[in-house]
Amino acid sequence: MRVVLSEDHRAHFPDGELYEGSLVRPFECPERWDHVVAALDAAGLDDRTAPDPVDLDRVRRVHDPAYVDFLEGFWDEWVASGRTGDAIPSMFPVRGLQQDRIPVEPEGKLGYFALAAETSITAGTWQAASASAAIAQTAQRLVAGGEPVAFGLCRPPGHHASADQFGGYCFLNNAAVAAEGFVADGAERVAVLDMDFHHGNGTQSIFWSRSDVLFASLHGHPEDAFPHFLGYVDEVGAGAGEGFTRNYPMRPGTAFDEWSGALDEACGHVAAHRPEALVVSLGVDAFEHDPISFFKLASDDFTVVGRRIGALGIPTVYVMEGGYAVDEIGINAVNVLTGHVS
Amino acid sequence: MRVVLSEDHRAHFPDGELYEGSLVRPFECPERWDHVVAALDAAGLDDRTAPDPVDLDRVRRVHDPAYVDFLEGFWDEWVASGRTGDAIPSMFPVRGLQQDRIPVEPEGKLGYFALAAETSITAGTWQAASASAAIAQTAQRLVAGGEPVAFGLCRPPGHHASADQFGGYCFLNNAAVAAEGFVADGAERVAVLDMDFHHGNGTQSIFWSRSDVLFASLHGHPEDAFPHFLGYVDEVGAGAGEGFTRNYPMRPGTAFDEWSGALDEACGHVAAHRPEALVVSLGVDAFEHDPISFFKLASDDFTVVGRRIGALGIPTVYVMEGGYAVDEIGINAVNVLTGHVS
Repeated sequence: MRVVLSEDHRAHFPDGELYEGSLVRPFECPERWDHVVAALDAAGLDDRTAPDPVDLDRVRRVHDPAYVDFLEGFWDEWVASGRTGDAIPSMFPVRGLQQDRIPVEPEGKLGYFALAAETSITAGTWQAASASAAIAQTAQRLVAGGEPVAFGLCRPPGHHASADQFGGYCFLNNAAVAAEGFVADGAERVAVLDMDFHHGNGTQSIFWSRSDVLFASLHGHPEDAFPHFLGYVDEVGAGAGEGFTRNYPMRPGTAFDEWSGALDEACGHVAAHRPEALVVSLGVDAFEHDPISFFKLASDDFTVVGRRIGALGIPTVYVMEGGYAVDEIGINAVNVLTGHVS
Repeated sequence: MRVVLSEDHRAHFPDGELYEGSLVRPFECPERWDHVVAALDAAGLDDRTAPDPVDLDRVRRVHDPAYVDFLEGFWDEWVASGRTGDAIPSMFPVRGLQQDRIPVEPEGKLGYFALAAETSITAGTWQAASASAAIAQTAQRLVAGGEPVAFGLCRPPGHHASADQFGGYCFLNNAAVAAEGFVADGAERVAVLDMDFHHGNGTQSIFWSRSDVLFASLHGHPEDAFPHFLGYVDEVGAGAGEGFTRNYPMRPGTAFDEWSGALDEACGHVAAHRPEALVVSLGVDAFEHDPISFFKLASDDFTVVGRRIGALGIPTVYVMEGGYAVDEIGINAVNVLTGHVS
């Protein structure tokens, strides 16, 4: 299996994450990547590739160009305004407020393009986020070129990023970039399967009105889990996209028997879509010991998951998403990959 | 002049305020109140009254009952869920997300009812916020009963709080509660004049569609200043309320000559409305040395402001809003009050 990765991810690591009333060391930390690499080593998955330079034209197929410009240039604006700390959004355009007017002052602009306050923009965020998208693009190109499966070890993750919003540790939506890459290369039908514990609100919103890209997500129920405001079962897409979004929200304590039943259903929808390519948002925070999640999957269960996805027989790009039980993120992610090819 | 105040405000003082990437000591701090009391003492304004108990039925005329229940009960939910730190919202129902579904899990519920992340709910928030609303109610009752002017030394402030959202240091909208109190007492026309540096987005939204309560605000332009997503000049109300909202956004560095011109215009609209009562959102952060604002009013200018408002000859309730140059908040606020009665 081809693995695409880069050290550029280290450029993004905020000083603090807003968590239950304090700023704590971010759960989404660089050593997550190291643990995945170590587990890839241990499994003999050593066919490594550096990403090609990011193709921003293709990124702009799923992200608002003004948002891409914002991500690329914001840190300089923030510093130029006299700020020295990480850029944490604080004021948000919620209900009842202007939805379309972008403030000029950096604090306001930051809030306009944000959906949550736990995620900061730092000096190295653009370097890391654009490299992460490049990893997804390179993995997609490999599969479009004939590889049956490739793994993009993306960091930062991407699935919470919408066309013009960052949050939930995500800036550019790597899964959406990969899926849209297949469309750009001529695919008529693509599927995204999001197995991260958290709902892939960004990916869903990007493909909400489209019938060519199916989106299916297994996740903590929004009443109970971040991102809290998307991922209900009755969200099924709209317009031409109606029926091409499928959500499987599950409650605290959900174990593998129920979760795998939802996976079977989601895989059934994926298969029925007859996609030419599959993108998997590979979060492993459904793991039983994840510190900020509440499902009960064991490490061995992830092997079964990979086997189930691999059995679909679809050319597949895996992109790394969440997983915050740092010591086990590597083995859990690699279990999915080895299961896939077993 | 009757002054209504209470020590209950001290119950609300979060450990930290999210500000430019750090948690800092909140700008909205208890000693603000002490400085105002000291200045009232110095000016001989010693006709002090404790508030009557809060009338929640009247509060619910301007706030969603579910929101009032949330404010009253949330701290216990937060603690029961195992949290120990202050409740700082982190995930918000911004554009593209569910707008009407309230999460069950406390973090999600907190975000649903919030509009910004700089403001925390603490163990004493409800005690302080409900007492602050009671102060506004008592001041309103005094004026409804014949006093020409009364000052409610509210803390926390209120004008950013909408019918169902807290933020910007505000929980219950004291000015809206007072204005609506006059309506409940039979007034056909009431005006709210918001002179706080920050736009009174909450008050505007509460009276947006009504012609009985005129709202006029002088504030930092939303492109440049918190709350960033409301307060544009073309926001004039809607439906029956069209023309009964008036906004005077002004740019960084605005001095008193321009500001007082806007005040004259706003007072002209107030006079034309022929209100039976006036509520003034008395923020003094238009002061030249305010640490988080950018107008250039001098302390003596506030005396002129009070004189201008007093010249309207309308029974008036002043409710305390912002002002973060702590050493000068007292003299600036009292200058308005003494100007009013001079």
